[in-house]
Amino acid sequence: MTSKADPRPKARTPRGFVDRRGDVLRAERRIVEAVSQVYERFGFELLETGAFEYADALGKFLPDADRPNEGVFALQDDDDEWMALRYDLTAPLARFVAQNWETLPKPFRRYAVGKVWRDEKPGPGRYREFVQCDADTVGSERPEADAEIIAMAVEGYAAAGLPRGAYVLKINNRKLLNGLLASCGVADEGQKLAVLRAVDKLDRLGRDGVRLLLGEGRLDESGAFTRGAGLAPAAAEPVLAFIAAGAGGRSATLDRIAEVVAGSAEGEAGLAELDRIGAALGAFGVGEEQALFDPSVVRGLEYYTGAVFEAELLAETQDEAGGGARFGAIGGGGRYDDLVARFTGERTPATGFSFGVSRLAAALAASGQSETSQARGPVVVIALDAARMTDYQSLAAELRGAGFAAEVYLGSAGMKAQMRYADRRLSPAAVILGEDEIAAGQVTVKDLDLGRQLAAGVSDNRAWRGDRPGQVTAPRADLVSLVRQIVGRAR
Amino acid sequence: MTSKADPRPKARTPRGFVDRRGDVLRAERRIVEAVSQVYERFGFELLETGAFEYADALGKFLPDADRPNEGVFALQDDDDEWMALRYDLTAPLARFVAQNWETLPKPFRRYAVGKVWRDEKPGPGRYREFVQCDADTVGSERPEADAEIIAMAVEGYAAAGLPRGAYVLKINNRKLLNGLLASCGVADEGQKLAVLRAVDKLDRLGRDGVRLLLGEGRLDESGAFTRGAGLAPAAAEPVLAFIAAGAGGRSATLDRIAEVVAGSAEGEAGLAELDRIGAALGAFGVGEEQALFDPSVVRGLEYYTGAVFEAELLAETQDEAGGGARFGAIGGGGRYDDLVARFTGERTPATGFSFGVSRLAAALAASGQSETSQARGPVVVIALDAARMTDYQSLAAELRGAGFAAEVYLGSAGMKAQMRYADRRLSPAAVILGEDEIAAGQVTVKDLDLGRQLAAGVSDNRAWRGDRPGQVTAPRADLVSLVRQIVGRAR
Repeated sequence: MTSKADPRPKARTPRGFVDRRGDVLRAERRIVEAVSQVYERFGFELLETGAFEYADALGKFLPDADRPNEGVFALQDDDDEWMALRYDLTAPLARFVAQNWETLPKPFRRYAVGKVWRDEKPGPGRYREFVQCDADTVGSERPEADAEIIAMAVEGYAAAGLPRGAYVLKINNRKLLNGLLASCGVADEGQKLAVLRAVDKLDRLGRDGVRLLLGEGRLDESGAFTRGAGLAPAAAEPVLAFIAAGAGGRSATLDRIAEVVAGSAEGEAGLAELDRIGAALGAFGVGEEQALFDPSVVRGLEYYTGAVFEAELLAETQDEAGGGARFGAIGGGGRYDDLVARFTGERTPATGFSFGVSRLAAALAASGQSETSQARGPVVVIALDAARMTDYQSLAAELRGAGFAAEVYLGSAGMKAQMRYADRRLSPAAVILGEDEIAAGQVTVKDLDLGRQLAAGVSDNRAWRGDRPGQVTAPRADLVSLVRQIVGRAR
Repeated sequence: MTSKADPRPKARTPRGFVDRRGDVLRAERRIVEAVSQVYERFGFELLETGAFEYADALGKFLPDADRPNEGVFALQDDDDEWMALRYDLTAPLARFVAQNWETLPKPFRRYAVGKVWRDEKPGPGRYREFVQCDADTVGSERPEADAEIIAMAVEGYAAAGLPRGAYVLKINNRKLLNGLLASCGVADEGQKLAVLRAVDKLDRLGRDGVRLLLGEGRLDESGAFTRGAGLAPAAAEPVLAFIAAGAGGRSATLDRIAEVVAGSAEGEAGLAELDRIGAALGAFGVGEEQALFDPSVVRGLEYYTGAVFEAELLAETQDEAGGGARFGAIGGGGRYDDLVARFTGERTPATGFSFGVSRLAAALAASGQSETSQARGPVVVIALDAARMTDYQSLAAELRGAGFAAEVYLGSAGMKAQMRYADRRLSPAAVILGEDEIAAGQVTVKDLDLGRQLAAGVSDNRAWRGDRPGQVTAPRADLVSLVRQIVGRAR
């Protein structure tokens, strides 16, 4: 190989990317399967698009305006066109719908599962690659379409194993804030966006921090200054009142919102939509404590035009470093009536929801709701004599044929190291075929779970030493039933 | 949105990337699930690594030396380090193993499923993103580890539904050709690689084309000249004899190879490995017609050091344009004993196999072996009166509760268009709740499959017109049993 002469590269993952094994992945797979089944039951069709989109088709809607390429991984193709890795599954859907509108059933309901990439600053629990699992309805402007998406999200969380009460789904409508700002004479799109981004920081910075960001700006503890939206206090105060309007039941919140947005056509349109969403949620049986209206929810993505949703975990949980941490959003979405129009020029109403699969998996694990059974390793056939490999392999094949995971040890270590290997793999049993066993037409099966329990002091140590329980030698024809006895007992 | 002022982007996918829907994706999922189960039964553990690796960690082992970044999608991170999207799942595994060697069970068996990206020149059926499904054993130099990988591949194809005889798994060993070249005095690594790449083109260019590429070079029909390996005829002829040695059973082929490589230590070592692989394959019950030795197989990737495997579809099938096309390789792998050593400096034997999932799915579809049942759409509840949306939604919820996929039509079209929508979705049934039904406490269910059969002339058209078969009005409480009757009959 030509690369042999190269200096040795260091074995490490790029910042913000992570290796994941067994249990974590299985937990994610279970979530994706459970949520996919809910989506299919609601009539949504699976769609997969490529990892790359042309950069102009993807657009720049992420809140990371100060990052390279505004938070998107982009590169130039060999025909000089810019491509970028998708940062969500919604922008590619808009492109797909615009491209195939004529031949699609309308409204078009689709779901999608896949990796997305964001060139964010990585941090603990904050990765630059993660899995989303989305459902969207394109071509319906009915608020019932939003309500269906919300009801489906609620069913999805239940199917994934998240208990009612562990999270809350907050609903808002961007038209409310837009209407409010219009009433205050704010018309500039850039300024509106700055207001949205200020409100989006309520969780982190509190009311006073948001007040500063609505006005001239805010100096943080590190001395960095973030420019504000530049609202006059007379415009900022109604915004602050508005985002505080969300306590209590759905209809009580709507009443308070009605006072704030009264007189603004856009605001009242948003209110009417929320009202119909609320009615439909009632029909879907979605409780007040599961989905409530909260004017402080705006969602970071720029493309939302109406209703927005955010599912927030309520439980305080530990972060990876053991400190207290909030998981915050475990999913979200909203209505984006202009995203398809970017391509076609024709307004195409659309709404959707995205499960943050990795965060949900972490939340389930932290709340003890994920399956606690540790993954079991395979039955290990001990291999001591290279000339007997064929016999060992026949034993493993026989066990696999009976439905067990089984393997022959393929390294070159001795008996003790092979037993340690089996132990490290969490094997339930080891199969030994020594010369004695071969001569007698027998096989020995060792119960490794029992061994582990004994080592942990769970069972009586004398019994183990006395009559070697957990190790049985029997005719070779009994292999499968022996292993079934032990592995069955172990589970 | 600030982007409203932008000129409209065109809705299209980047070259070599593709959108995929329903049936195709479901077929892929089935393959991945079936193969994953085989891997788990053999004791392999699931591992997932990130899409990006540092470019130096990934290395450049693709055959596309003349493409930008040698066929890899690369970009510079904001700390100026080069990252690249993985082009396979093997190079990231080598990085992972080097990084975690101390804590891994050894030998380490892992499987992985994921997208890989290659910046190849796209063409019909040739994409720049595809799914691989790999299993590898790291830390065993036993030829039995290679044989296990091969046997597992054979079981994987069977589990995926590919019939015996539809493909053949060809096995070779790079040490044979290396030994042969050493005997001929060829020692330069670059020249050896050029020989490998010439041999790799046997399928496409035939024996004469390879002879030219082994020598000075070859002028193709377009007038482009490819420089050859520069072997003298005295060195090229044994290579051509060698790659023709693979006809007949495994042991006959080994006899012929033995004659060619006699006297070369490396060649004889390769031969001894193949011999042990052959013995182990016999023990695994892998037939001669399923896995044979073929010296013409080299595999394009540069990192292989010993045994190499390639699964080739035998059936001639149609390409997308309807022309005759060979699928060629539907999977492959081999032994790469130096890939971990790139990081650690310590030789770490490793071997693995990779299923080309998309190609296999295409092959199964083309050979009629994939499930032929067309995916069914959801039951559609017709929605004609906006004031009745809550009632429609209750019906759909009731059907979903009974296990049916069901949805309410959420667009704004009339009855006829809604029926066309249901038809386009391949819905088995439509549910109608009109004013008459509501007044009478009833519901109407329409059998859409029967309607489609009638339209296709399969059933008797007069019967349809006469007593409206396939449409039943009954008490609303009977909804689920009505739908079960119709959907059950339809399936």
